[in-house]
Amino acid sequence: MLTLYSFGPAANSLKPLLALYEKGLEFTPRFVDPKRFEHHEDWFKQINPRGQVPALDHDGHIITESTVICEYLEDAFPEAPALRPADPVAIAEMRVWTKWVDEYFCWCVSTIGWERMIGPSARQLSDAEFEDKVARIPVAEQRTKWRNARAGFPREVIDEEMRKIRLSIARLEARLAESPWLAGDDYTLADICNFAIANGMQFGFPEVVNAEATPHLLGWIDRINARPAAQAMFARSKSEMPAREPATV
Amino acid sequence: MLTLYSFGPAANSLKPLLALYEKGLEFTPRFVDPKRFEHHEDWFKQINPRGQVPALDHDGHIITESTVICEYLEDAFPEAPALRPADPVAIAEMRVWTKWVDEYFCWCVSTIGWERMIGPSARQLSDAEFEDKVARIPVAEQRTKWRNARAGFPREVIDEEMRKIRLSIARLEARLAESPWLAGDDYTLADICNFAIANGMQFGFPEVVNAEATPHLLGWIDRINARPAAQAMFARSKSEMPAREPATV
Repeated sequence: MLTLYSFGPAANSLKPLLALYEKGLEFTPRFVDPKRFEHHEDWFKQINPRGQVPALDHDGHIITESTVICEYLEDAFPEAPALRPADPVAIAEMRVWTKWVDEYFCWCVSTIGWERMIGPSARQLSDAEFEDKVARIPVAEQRTKWRNARAGFPREVIDEEMRKIRLSIARLEARLAESPWLAGDDYTLADICNFAIANGMQFGFPEVVNAEATPHLLGWIDRINARPAAQAMFARSKSEMPAREPATV
Repeated sequence: MLTLYSFGPAANSLKPLLALYEKGLEFTPRFVDPKRFEHHEDWFKQINPRGQVPALDHDGHIITESTVICEYLEDAFPEAPALRPADPVAIAEMRVWTKWVDEYFCWCVSTIGWERMIGPSARQLSDAEFEDKVARIPVAEQRTKWRNARAGFPREVIDEEMRKIRLSIARLEARLAESPWLAGDDYTLADICNFAIANGMQFGFPEVVNAEATPHLLGWIDRINARPAAQAMFARSKSEMPAREPATV
């Protein structure tokens, strides 16, 4: 039996969610509510001591880290439709892209998301309430990020992250101008993992992602959104998830 | 035919080097000399436009990123001794460790290495010589890192990286106190990729890695160094590499 703990179809949580739909695997979605800090509650820290979603429970085995979960689904369900190429060179190309989104692209977008969404909500809490929430976060770097978001990230940090976002988007656009999918001719985890971060940037970062500057990136975002798996994922999540703002990395 | 471009058996370059020896694969080692900035020369940037080692040439296909190369060797040479478990849960556990070293452990150790080794050598260059070298570095973040190393990293950066090193070493020690190898009962890429960073820390960071504080980590380092593959790698590298200081991440 498969249970996916996630914030729903955005950011890192989207990766295994979309992979599960693409592979047609039956699973129980368990939406964890970041607004209520559910991922820092004791019951969830018993599942993932790092207090981070997504986390997959497969017959009692807990798999963490969004990209690792995606590759796990390839390894554990080889009979389901493949999201990893068969050719070793193509697999390596896919992994360079999934590694890049995890180590570079997701972080710059995340900081801006935190500045825009986590900062204001953290400032609505009293100092005592805030400290109470922070004390439950198991990872030191996450505690620091909450404090920085509440204080507001320094101008130079925001500028540097925006530079990285522009560079990342230019890299994606250049690649998608020469190839239908990031790792070549096939739709793979490279696309799913980068879509998890890029989807919605046409609204959140319209000065960077738009029809004039990034036509190939937009076309790719549209193609993935039009896939039956993506449509089913968004429809089911909307009907089953509590109404709230989009999740952040 | 396999050719591995690397800085030799240390840091990220050690990962695919040791994997090649463990798998018993014939390959041509091509040592790239960081002291002469060979990785930023045009001939090498034609191989890897990012100007980074290691890079593997397999029959004309270039594979980059140390951890991706290691997994590529598993995919491309399934008949050679395996360094990746067969069980999907164990593979995921291995990947959590290889991801962690790439995203966390290697960076804090790298900064201290740059502070100790790259900084002094960069300060021996004139401003003009230094700018000439930096202009050839293709990745913006690497140019910044060279400038920071030459200026000397700020005290608070060094302190924060040392905090992360202590935390990383404590994590490795705790795991190795309960398990012979990082991903469980088998020696895997999790061990090779973390050994690449941890090996030598008993000399470079004796206040953190020592017999009293980290007996299990030291035992694991010794066990890997004693393996025939590691002994062959270090012996051959010593005889074929130009004599120089150890490479840095």
